[in-house]
Amino acid sequence: MTLLCTGYEPFGDHETNPSERVARELDGRTVAGHEVVGAVLPVEFDRVADELAALIDEHDPAAVVATGLAGGRTTVSVERVAINVDDAVTVPDNADDSPHAAPIDAAGADAHLATIPVVESVEALLDAGIPARVSNSAGTHCCNHALYSLLENHDVSAGFVHLPHTPEGAVAEAQAPERGGGVPASLPLALQVEGVRTVLETAAE
Amino acid sequence: MTLLCTGYEPFGDHETNPSERVARELDGRTVAGHEVVGAVLPVEFDRVADELAALIDEHDPAAVVATGLAGGRTTVSVERVAINVDDAVTVPDNADDSPHAAPIDAAGADAHLATIPVVESVEALLDAGIPARVSNSAGTHCCNHALYSLLENHDVSAGFVHLPHTPEGAVAEAQAPERGGGVPASLPLALQVEGVRTVLETAAE
Amino acid sequence: MTLLCTGYEPFGDHETNPSERVARELDGRTVAGHEVVGAVLPVEFDRVADELAALIDEHDPAAVVATGLAGGRTTVSVERVAINVDDAVTVPDNADDSPHAAPIDAAGADAHLATIPVVESVEALLDAGIPARVSNSAGTHCCNHALYSLLENHDVSAGFVHLPHTPEGAVAEAQAPERGGGVPASLPLALQVEGVRTVLETAAE
Amino acid sequence: MTLLCTGYEPFGDHETNPSERVARELDGRTVAGHEVVGAVLPVEFDRVADELAALIDEHDPAAVVATGLAGGRTTVSVERVAINVDDAVTVPDNADDSPHAAPIDAAGADAHLATIPVVESVEALLDAGIPARVSNSAGTHCCNHALYSLLENHDVSAGFVHLPHTPEGAVAEAQAPERGGGVPASLPLALQVEGVRTVLETAAE
Repeated sequence: MTLLCTGYEPFGDHETNPSERVARELDGRTVAGHEVVGAVLPVEFDRVADELAALIDEHDPAAVVATGLAGGRTTVSVERVAINVDDAVTVPDNADDSPHAAPIDAAGADAHLATIPVVESVEALLDAGIPARVSNSAGTHCCNHALYSLLENHDVSAGFVHLPHTPEGAVAEAQAPERGGGVPASLPLALQVEGVRTVLETAAE
Repeated sequence: MTLLCTGYEPFGDHETNPSERVARELDGRTVAGHEVVGAVLPVEFDRVADELAALIDEHDPAAVVATGLAGGRTTVSVERVAINVDDAVTVPDNADDSPHAAPIDAAGADAHLATIPVVESVEALLDAGIPARVSNSAGTHCCNHALYSLLENHDVSAGFVHLPHTPEGAVAEAQAPERGGGVPASLPLALQVEGVRTVLETAAE
Repeated sequence: MTLLCTGYEPFGDHETNPSERVARELDGRTVAGHEVVGAVLPVEFDRVADELAALIDEHDPAAVVATGLAGGRTTVSVERVAINVDDAVTVPDNADDSPHAAPIDAAGADAHLATIPVVESVEALLDAGIPARVSNSAGTHCCNHALYSLLENHDVSAGFVHLPHTPEGAVAEAQAPERGGGVPASLPLALQVEGVRTVLETAAE
Repeated sequence: MTLLCTGYEPFGDHETNPSERVARELDGRTVAGHEVVGAVLPVEFDRVADELAALIDEHDPAAVVATGLAGGRTTVSVERVAINVDDAVTVPDNADDSPHAAPIDAAGADAHLATIPVVESVEALLDAGIPARVSNSAGTHCCNHALYSLLENHDVSAGFVHLPHTPEGAVAEAQAPERGGGVPASLPLALQVEGVRTVLETAAE
């Protein structure tokens, strides 16, 4: 069988998205005896669920781990829950859609807990020396939308991993650091790839 | 000539100190035509200045870059200033000394600006893709004490670099991350070593 | 009819709890034509749901707004969701109970969205000049447990408000501020009381 | 004699500045037997020192406490040091001047420690129940420039207090709080006024 791992294209002011690079790096690898299918999703509220449905239809994965960028976080964060709320807060999506406290699915459940083993994934990450934590909120942007759609619409083990910037990405995001301005936290791409691989492995077992 | 690069031994609740590892890694390397002398300082207010004086006396360095751990920071931080204040705040030093708003040198200057090229160092770090920034406060613990002593007592180009945790160190510092607790920011040791090497190179030029 | 407003007794290292004081201040007041019943809950995973059930049984409120302390937050935070997870993370409850990633109700829903008007409450708070925001996570301690229990077990409009420290409470929490240590954010008790009153009013309308 | 207390006009994206309101509130009051002269400074690197010199020349104060806004801080912060560096970092001054790592006074000292009793001021603030701390960096904008100029050019007891937003100011600064966005920390104006009054009193004694 396969394991589906998605990332996102760049969005907002960000020129790159580490989740896209992680998904491309893992595409084609074998994890826990499964072939990883790496795919990149659009940052568009209206398209995320359909793209995921098409990928699941095509690849019939044993588990799905979607990933996205959460600038400002210091770790690989494994999300515990997705809620039935779309809100772009301050950053419109890439189609310039900016929902405000709208339900994802008016007939859907209020929320779903991730069905990959969240706590075990974080423990496996920490055992591997990778900074990681359980997160209790995936926000209300496309990342939460993806996880909610996976859990509401599909009978598959599914989870979501938020990734910090890479060091190069943090440098690109920095505001006048040579003058005392701020620079976000980061983890190197190789550590992020190994982190998501570890979550896929835990999910597959 | 030589370049002196110091780190610190572990202190407080920390089991390791990346600055010690960076100093050991750089010891013996050649940077900008100079041999790096890597040394590890005690985290003791009463001994830092004497140890630095002995090292400078022995090695007559072209420049000194002292380094230390600043858990919670996200970058390689190049310090701009050292102030004539010792204060252990909440963490006594390794000899259990805990000064409170005391002058380092009652006859000394209020403060000294670092004499390595601070802004150029940060620019060189960013050019190398290493998260970095200028910092306007080295605190009031042994790190500030070291930089103040270098600048007050010695006629040598001197600066200080605060380093974040390594990923392994951040994992060790984390409070119940598998349950949603916090994990500090980090940079891998190799990036920290390359960062301090870059500052030494900029200081030597 | 009545409006039920609960706070919590002190817990962990905290000597006071602003939510207790807010609930006591509002007890007996008339808001939107309803009498406010202010009550103080124990910080015990095993007792919160039963105490709430008894209060609802006795007072048959038109709406319930539970409140609790979230040290470190800067605002009156109106919670959007409660999840079916108990986890004490790093702070055991007052009965020294320390659940780890356990379901609140093994047969219950994964999560519930608050049924008071969350967004309208925050807008009303901001209109009144009170720092406020929607929060997407009530954590996994007794606060989340209370909101989950209200929404899972009772057919009543229910919500939760996290409160920051009062200035006096922030001073008590501070670590060596006279030496440069940290002090948490705060809002004065009067503003907190007016904030929770505003949420009760919005919930009642 | 008099006590001089300055605030700043609004700057950058801020519509108001609590330090201006604090200075106006204290103007004309009697503190420790001295009349307070409250004055509002321009946020212009080129004019701050001259305005302060004119005020000192006119009023011959027993002590000067300058104040300014530091959005993001949680407390009344009493600054320990001013450094001989102007850097606008990311926010030009109100004359659109944007210095980059430039000395304030090419012939001046590297830095000066504040000459009001900093630690005693913070202790008095905490005794009064006002969140406060010692700060080791006044930044490199006009606030630092003011304190450096006072200490470099005048033989008067001088200090600087950074103030957070007021609750109303924090609401105005908030980014989409009704959708989950951020809101800075705050302290009510009355507490800020009492805080600066307390520092003036401590400085006068």
